[in-house]
Amino acid sequence: MAQRLIVVGGDAAGMAAASQARRRRDRRDLEIVAFERGHFTSYSACGIPYWISGLVPDRDQLIARDPETFRTDFDIDVRLRHEVTGIDLDRREVVARDLAGGGEVRERFDTLMYATGAVPIKPDWAHTDAGGVFGIQTLNDGAALRDWLEAEPKPRRAVVVGGGYIGVEMAEALIQRGLTVTLVEKAAQPMSTVDEDMAELVVGAMRGLGITVRAGLSVTGLEQRDGRVSAVVTAEGPIPTDVVVLGLGVRPNVALAEAAGIPLGPSGAIRVDRRMRVPGVEDVWAAGDCVECLHRVSGMPVHIPLGTHANKQGRVAGINIGGGYATFAGVIGTAVTKVCELEVGRTGLRERDAAAAGFEFVSVISESTSRAGYYPGARPMTVKLLAEKPSGRLLGAQIVGWSEAAKRIDTLAVALWNGMTVDDMTALDLGYAPPYAPVWDPVLIAARKAVDALAALGR
Amino acid sequence: MAQRLIVVGGDAAGMAAASQARRRRDRRDLEIVAFERGHFTSYSACGIPYWISGLVPDRDQLIARDPETFRTDFDIDVRLRHEVTGIDLDRREVVARDLAGGGEVRERFDTLMYATGAVPIKPDWAHTDAGGVFGIQTLNDGAALRDWLEAEPKPRRAVVVGGGYIGVEMAEALIQRGLTVTLVEKAAQPMSTVDEDMAELVVGAMRGLGITVRAGLSVTGLEQRDGRVSAVVTAEGPIPTDVVVLGLGVRPNVALAEAAGIPLGPSGAIRVDRRMRVPGVEDVWAAGDCVECLHRVSGMPVHIPLGTHANKQGRVAGINIGGGYATFAGVIGTAVTKVCELEVGRTGLRERDAAAAGFEFVSVISESTSRAGYYPGARPMTVKLLAEKPSGRLLGAQIVGWSEAAKRIDTLAVALWNGMTVDDMTALDLGYAPPYAPVWDPVLIAARKAVDALAALGR
Repeated sequence: MAQRLIVVGGDAAGMAAASQARRRRDRRDLEIVAFERGHFTSYSACGIPYWISGLVPDRDQLIARDPETFRTDFDIDVRLRHEVTGIDLDRREVVARDLAGGGEVRERFDTLMYATGAVPIKPDWAHTDAGGVFGIQTLNDGAALRDWLEAEPKPRRAVVVGGGYIGVEMAEALIQRGLTVTLVEKAAQPMSTVDEDMAELVVGAMRGLGITVRAGLSVTGLEQRDGRVSAVVTAEGPIPTDVVVLGLGVRPNVALAEAAGIPLGPSGAIRVDRRMRVPGVEDVWAAGDCVECLHRVSGMPVHIPLGTHANKQGRVAGINIGGGYATFAGVIGTAVTKVCELEVGRTGLRERDAAAAGFEFVSVISESTSRAGYYPGARPMTVKLLAEKPSGRLLGAQIVGWSEAAKRIDTLAVALWNGMTVDDMTALDLGYAPPYAPVWDPVLIAARKAVDALAALGR
Repeated sequence: MAQRLIVVGGDAAGMAAASQARRRRDRRDLEIVAFERGHFTSYSACGIPYWISGLVPDRDQLIARDPETFRTDFDIDVRLRHEVTGIDLDRREVVARDLAGGGEVRERFDTLMYATGAVPIKPDWAHTDAGGVFGIQTLNDGAALRDWLEAEPKPRRAVVVGGGYIGVEMAEALIQRGLTVTLVEKAAQPMSTVDEDMAELVVGAMRGLGITVRAGLSVTGLEQRDGRVSAVVTAEGPIPTDVVVLGLGVRPNVALAEAAGIPLGPSGAIRVDRRMRVPGVEDVWAAGDCVECLHRVSGMPVHIPLGTHANKQGRVAGINIGGGYATFAGVIGTAVTKVCELEVGRTGLRERDAAAAGFEFVSVISESTSRAGYYPGARPMTVKLLAEKPSGRLLGAQIVGWSEAAKRIDTLAVALWNGMTVDDMTALDLGYAPPYAPVWDPVLIAARKAVDALAALGR
């Protein structure tokens, strides 16, 4: 008799796991049932801001694979609009509510794949009946926001609350749609994924676009008029608006796991071993935005919800469930984004992370250009490196620049991944031609500056 | 009394060495004399095609640092238009001819920096009195070609001989100036710096631009009329033209070294140790396009004339001459170029190199896109990887793509530099956001495909 894999959550991690398991075990060996409470499988949440801006015209472009593909090509019993409400580890059963048809189903499992993702952080003040307040996690969130922006009376002003990647991307999307946009950030600066000196460059670019940035300010409530949001309330007074977008980040969606007795790690997300197995809980696996993973530089568990990790982790879990062997090697915190033409990349530790991990380090900032100075389109690029002292080992890197900047972080990410020192990095054989780099690539210039900074300390 | 450093050749390598030596030793300790037979110090030869095309309007933009800067800021006695004609290692003297003023000077040295660069390969048939035949190594070459292109009667047709980087870039430059361009390549295909399957993509793009590519064809002579070149002669008949550009590559400029008894390596270039010292010849150093260096993947000495290596090597030599410590770590053959919008990157070994070095390997080609498929501007990208079997160690990589492709080679170059296996590479934490990459970056997709190919062999 076939064994049974139940997948809880049918987005990137869950469906990657399911399809990898299927590649290795056919249906006579393994039945696969995937429960997804939403309307879609495997869509690109990261693409939503570009759909809002209109750059991506059609919602369906964001759907990587539709449920029918999983059903017919992978023989996976995908059940959309089914919310798993309970997991019984002793009886090896899940209970799911049919959100569309009503009623409840109960399914036994031999193996459980927990991939519930993350839930947006929603403060108390955001729970309101007023129209015009939007999260932006799901395609339905995006659709609701788009409808609101297009319906009469047309919103003219927007407030984005939260200045992380999604907040910044949404601020850009809304200003591109012609709204007047204010971004409110509780911390001293938005874009806290990079150090403050680098974030300043991003904030400058945002202001250049016409976005009003209000940092060091908390939203404490909403005002409404005729059932529509009319302002966000702050300690510095109300900010009038016609639409509020929440970009306050996410937390791992672990309520169900906690209730079932699946242990969490110190980050608050689910702890997994290298093969994406939940340690101490037999035949339960987890992957994606609901798990924590090893930061290879700090050695600490971290929760970094990102589609690229979810896909890799799901794949690893699925290979293992399928009887193969794969491990997830951890993360180093690489991320890229853009604010219109300004590109931002980061990898490894920021200054505060490095200090928290106990490292001593130097940090240097160097200025260079994307191309040979004389080549048309050469634009400024700022590279920041953190290097451990006295070893010179790279600990983190950040890049901000006006073109061909963001993906240069990959060069630094691979150096970091391999534990290179900044001394070693000065020798790297990187591509050189005038349209692509100065004869000393910005990465090499930055490494040389870090070497000089370490030498100046006498190490 | 001060010691004396004589620099033979005042371009990138020589002047980098001179200025690094000066940073560590002042003039009371070290006199520095630099002889340069040309009119300039430290110019960007790689930029010449873009000056010819008009993209870079002004010749002086290609000059990185003028002689006056070296004289005043670095206290280096730069003597332009002085060709060193002899080196006497026993008497520790060089003899130089003053090409402008006439006469000869004789200067003693304690330390010699040999940085004569490379000389363009010029076949017998190219030695002609006819006007309209140009090399493109020096700024004066470039100026002569520009004058020819602008003078009456205006050339309408061009033949570029040689399909390496410079040949391809010159073909593009000339077609951008509105000429009818034929590129003649002796080998079966131009762009032999990448494997034939990848070169085919480049040739396709060149043809798309309107460049006529004649491969597998040798030029054997020239025809002229009224003192002007009128055709190149080939086995398949003459190709009429108004201008001929030679892009046949370069060879190390070692005549002077050979005459002086400085030993050459197996590549025909000067052999140096890790500190850029000529082994067995006291106080003689060499760097730049005249030396050979270690290929870190094949372990063999190679001659790869490229500005980025020349700058690094010169710097290393200068630090050592200055009493510091630095080594040159070798190269892995990274290079990038473009043919209009088509970008090409390569690193490590091609198939023929890997076979020649005795490696067994698999090679895979994968197709992907530069950005998330749904993001505007996503363009196809082809990545080829060579991986050793059974180890899976990356041996080489090539990328051809329509945007954001060339500099992605750096990611692979750093992986190669660190000896990563393709298995390890599938785990890399690379930057992901829809404007910059699909959720599986092209590099990761390629690595996965290589892993699959190795697995299929049963390893």
